[in-house]
Amino acid sequence: SVRVAFTKRVWQPNNPTLAEAFGHADPHDASRALVVLDAQLAQSQPDIAPQIRQCFDQGDLPLLADVLYLPGGEASKNDPAHLDTLYRAMLEHDIDRRSYVLAIGGGALLDAVGYAAATLHRGVRLIRCPTTTLAQCDSGVGVKNAVNRFGIKNAVGTFAIPWAVINDSAALASLPDDTWRHGFAEVVKVALLKDAALFHWLESHADALAARDEALAHHAWQRSAQLHLHHIAASREAGGGGDPFEQRHARPLDLGHWAAHRLEELSRHTPERTIPHGPAVSLGLTVDLTYASRLGLLAPGLADRVISLLETLGLPTRHPLLAHPQLPEGLEAFRQHLGGRLTITTIRGIADPIDLHKINEQTLDSTLQSLASLPDTVSA
Amino acid sequence: SVRVAFTKRVWQPNNPTLAEAFGHADPHDASRALVVLDAQLAQSQPDIAPQIRQCFDQGDLPLLADVLYLPGGEASKNDPAHLDTLYRAMLEHDIDRRSYVLAIGGGALLDAVGYAAATLHRGVRLIRCPTTTLAQCDSGVGVKNAVNRFGIKNAVGTFAIPWAVINDSAALASLPDDTWRHGFAEVVKVALLKDAALFHWLESHADALAARDEALAHHAWQRSAQLHLHHIAASREAGGGGDPFEQRHARPLDLGHWAAHRLEELSRHTPERTIPHGPAVSLGLTVDLTYASRLGLLAPGLADRVISLLETLGLPTRHPLLAHPQLPEGLEAFRQHLGGRLTITTIRGIADPIDLHKINEQTLDSTLQSLASLPDTVSA
Repeated sequence: SVRVAFTKRVWQPNNPTLAEAFGHADPHDASRALVVLDAQLAQSQPDIAPQIRQCFDQGDLPLLADVLYLPGGEASKNDPAHLDTLYRAMLEHDIDRRSYVLAIGGGALLDAVGYAAATLHRGVRLIRCPTTTLAQCDSGVGVKNAVNRFGIKNAVGTFAIPWAVINDSAALASLPDDTWRHGFAEVVKVALLKDAALFHWLESHADALAARDEALAHHAWQRSAQLHLHHIAASREAGGGGDPFEQRHARPLDLGHWAAHRLEELSRHTPERTIPHGPAVSLGLTVDLTYASRLGLLAPGLADRVISLLETLGLPTRHPLLAHPQLPEGLEAFRQHLGGRLTITTIRGIADPIDLHKINEQTLDSTLQSLASLPDTVSA
Repeated sequence: SVRVAFTKRVWQPNNPTLAEAFGHADPHDASRALVVLDAQLAQSQPDIAPQIRQCFDQGDLPLLADVLYLPGGEASKNDPAHLDTLYRAMLEHDIDRRSYVLAIGGGALLDAVGYAAATLHRGVRLIRCPTTTLAQCDSGVGVKNAVNRFGIKNAVGTFAIPWAVINDSAALASLPDDTWRHGFAEVVKVALLKDAALFHWLESHADALAARDEALAHHAWQRSAQLHLHHIAASREAGGGGDPFEQRHARPLDLGHWAAHRLEELSRHTPERTIPHGPAVSLGLTVDLTYASRLGLLAPGLADRVISLLETLGLPTRHPLLAHPQLPEGLEAFRQHLGGRLTITTIRGIADPIDLHKINEQTLDSTLQSLASLPDTVSA
């Protein structure tokens, strides 16, 4: 079980969420917490580090060992030196299996810190504080961590249940509009897979969401987090996936993700044109639904509705890299990660998922070519 | 659950153990196996690699991707370059989550390969083939893996259940006498913690065991493996530890190990005098039981019986490094790995363990000084 808290302004002294996340300390534990903070976040919000220190000074919390600054974004996962920095800091501050690492940042930083925490002493306690919409509504509540090695995304990682997750809505307020929008890609994805009511709600409120109505957006992030968490934690009988550690072939939450991962990799070679995860998922959803539509698998009109929703939410649905000859290799990379036969989860209708084990190369190719050549309404 | 097989000559073509360890393949898996073989073992037994290849050629087994040679011993855990070699080889040969890594070697090699296998793609299948007495009767059947980093033994690792473990008694036949004896340290340890009948049996057959009676020794290795496995896998109600992933403070199988780990570290600085794990455990048992005896905690005469048994089995009970001023720091290192309060498992009598949370420094110091100054009967 994962403890996930939704709160606003977690660092305010009278907010009990942080103390609750640590839980009741064993009287024999002289426990400590090492805070790892996204360096860019600390720079753009100079108040946050002092607020964190004050929080630990005043509350009945573990001893704050230190605040460590780590570059955020994919950089934190790409450079093995960052992993060593984390290990060294944890060792220097005597972080043991009953101590805590509090990771504050986006999904990539949480992934890297999560991997370090899961492997030092075979696992110390991790509290995740996601600060991006993507991380709050998807990966932050998950049980995965990883770093990139040898040019392969998430090549090395573990499954590890975090001690707690704190989704602070205030952390999202200062995000620039384009980054803030990225989370909608995962909300649309999980609605398509799991929740027709949420999909219709998104369609009804797309304009207000795009205009950054905070109350509506908060509902979207929270509902998405709950759906992701339920899928991971609940048994199949209870409507969940029943496979938190991915023993089976399928990755039933990864609609649109084979192309998304490949687009992220292919775009990394030109740093100024790197496609972040949210836009990549939006493009991946467009690819998978257009493909399913062309095969006659998908309910008529649905692909267009999804594309229209994504565009209204400010997410891209066209990109020249979709015509990259190495894009389809993403299918094989996706298969290899799990092994066994190729299994691509797509949908026939809303909340009606189906696994494909073969992909029609010609149809995929013509889908990709047409999406690549259309002018985009939103820049990735 | 861990599948542990005891066999003789696993690489003989008509031995079904290997095929059973892989189990029934999913028809959708195009599964492969990468064999990682201790380089010294391959050199001293030039037949083994061809035998392994022949086994895969003739049997209904996964495709043999390659045989990779890795230095054995603590070297395999110390150098991060070896870990990268393992990752690269697994990636090069498309080892996915449904493929197998077969690790053949001593405990240290199994630890390093186990860590690589547990983290690539968040875990590929590991089959352990321990080739030392220590690994066959203790760590080989366990759920831990680790590498050494920053000068700290097992600093980075995971808990991961191996796909299968194959204990091949023939693998032990070619071991030199001094290495072959090392396993007895863990057999004596687990008998003291768990099984009075085994302890008395060891006392009765110590001379024959020391003279390398293969049938008797085979019983000792197998019984030790079973006791270790039962402790890890069984609930407390069923007489096991009920804590496979060490969530609690105690390490109830680690009698004598706080001093053992520290002796291994302290002796590493003079490579020609490095104390291997088995002798280190023998010294650690001597320290803990002598200490408990001096405190009046241990049944009278038992410490002397254990020391006599260890010496008959050819294991050291005295060493000048026991007087090293940094030896007692091993207590704090031991505590840190788990966190929480210090918990040292010792015994009051055979199969009568008790946890100590405080150590009397003076008594420990005088124990160490006296053990260090006595002439040793067996060289470490």
